Amino acid sequence: MTYCVGLKLDRGLVFMSDTRTNAGMDSISTFRKMHVWEKPGERVIVLMSAGNLATTQAVVSLLEERSKAPEERSSVVLETPSMYQTARLIGDVVKEVIAHASPTGESADSYFNASFILGGQIKGSPPRLFMIYPEGNFIESTDDTPFFQVGETKYGKPIIVRAYDRTMSFEETVKLLMVSFDSTLKSNLSVGLPLDLLLYENDALAVKLKKRIALDDPYYRTISDGWSNALKLAFKSLPDFPI
Amino acid sequence: MTYCVGLKLDRGLVFMSDTRTNAGMDSISTFRKMHVWEKPGERVIVLMSAGNLATTQAVVSLLEERSKAPEERSSVVLETPSMYQTARLIGDVVKEVIAHASPTGESADSYFNASFILGGQIKGSPPRLFMIYPEGNFIESTDDTPFFQVGETKYGKPIIVRAYDRTMSFEETVKLLMVSFDSTLKSNLSVGLPLDLLLYENDALAVKLKKRIALDDPYYRTISDGWSNALKLAFKSLPDFPI
Repeated sequence: MTYCVGLKLDRGLVFMSDTRTNAGMDSISTFRKMHVWEKPGERVIVLMSAGNLATTQAVVSLLEERSKAPEERSSVVLETPSMYQTARLIGDVVKEVIAHASPTGESADSYFNASFILGGQIKGSPPRLFMIYPEGNFIESTDDTPFFQVGETKYGKPIIVRAYDRTMSFEETVKLLMVSFDSTLKSNLSVGLPLDLLLYENDALAVKLKKRIALDDPYYRTISDGWSNALKLAFKSLPDFPI
Repeated sequence: MTYCVGLKLDRGLVFMSDTRTNAGMDSISTFRKMHVWEKPGERVIVLMSAGNLATTQAVVSLLEERSKAPEERSSVVLETPSMYQTARLIGDVVKEVIAHASPTGESADSYFNASFILGGQIKGSPPRLFMIYPEGNFIESTDDTPFFQVGETKYGKPIIVRAYDRTMSFEETVKLLMVSFDSTLKSNLSVGLPLDLLLYENDALAVKLKKRIALDDPYYRTISDGWSNALKLAFKSLPDFPI
């Protein structure tokens, strides 16, 4: 499995993804699930994926035109006129890849499924955040639903639902996502460190921060240990059930 | 869906279940998922169920011998010699009910699936807690795995993993389960109030407390509101990510 979150703030976009992929319990590997295309001053596009690794890699390869010779390559997502067109393009590629992998005739193709979170900004338009489904269609974030999760989403959702606030700083939002990821890591073996983090500030048209967070990252350790204690204190602060 | 938790403490057993069942979004009903058989001084047996409602009701009906005339009925679980035998008996009934509902021939029967948490005590043996699978087999709780969840288990697991301690009081344990259920209720529409709560104290051979907790329950409201605030304070107490 996988866990990825894309979150929209008043001041920009925040992305976090884990790096574990597994095919069964004894076939565990580390793969980057966050892909970034950047043309400073013109656009930043971030794509995170969950689902069948062959499908998600094929989608990214097609977007990067890896079938062409290296000198002729120019990722198609660097040429789209808008984020909406980018989401549509990626949706079409997802549909094509899944259809190609599926057995012909009537048969479930869920095994090849993959979902994506797409976010970024292209000069002249505001930053946008999309969730792309395996069927190729997509939805955009709104003020009511300002974040998307894909993969193993349930363990880490309650804290985001309660603590998210669109006026948050980047510093606080990274803390929120670290807590959400830590809760997931502690409950599910198929989500694993290191984590990839990307911050994008509105209208910067360049990545603000891109960082890989490993097990020995001191801030991650502070949050992971500190959250256990803080949760226990929070729990203790509530009144016991009167019998 | 459903959410049920059975938890073993040094001092006894605690059970909590929700009451929502749904077949689609517009067919929502309230059904008790906690069933109790009690012969004071001799045995207390608690069964909680998640899964197909027809299956779980059929299992309980068979256990209560509802096919007989009311005056001849005597639940079979009031006659078993041990908790282990009770788990085995219920496992066999589950298997039989699912096999009866399944289409004949090669076909998935997952639609008729149901899982159960069984706990209690029979005079002469210690209290025990089991989880019974749709296949009819079962596992028993140990010191390493002192609680079982069935149904929509993921949202409410992180807080139990972090705050559970086998030496906890009943008062604190009910608080823990309320927080776990509240996190689930806030994230998933298919789990709903009211909640059923049952406390069993070791060697009492009688139910200590059985209570239905409704939306307007003042303690539930205190925990639900208080936990949001306590979580936010806990979150604020951690250091922000340094950029």
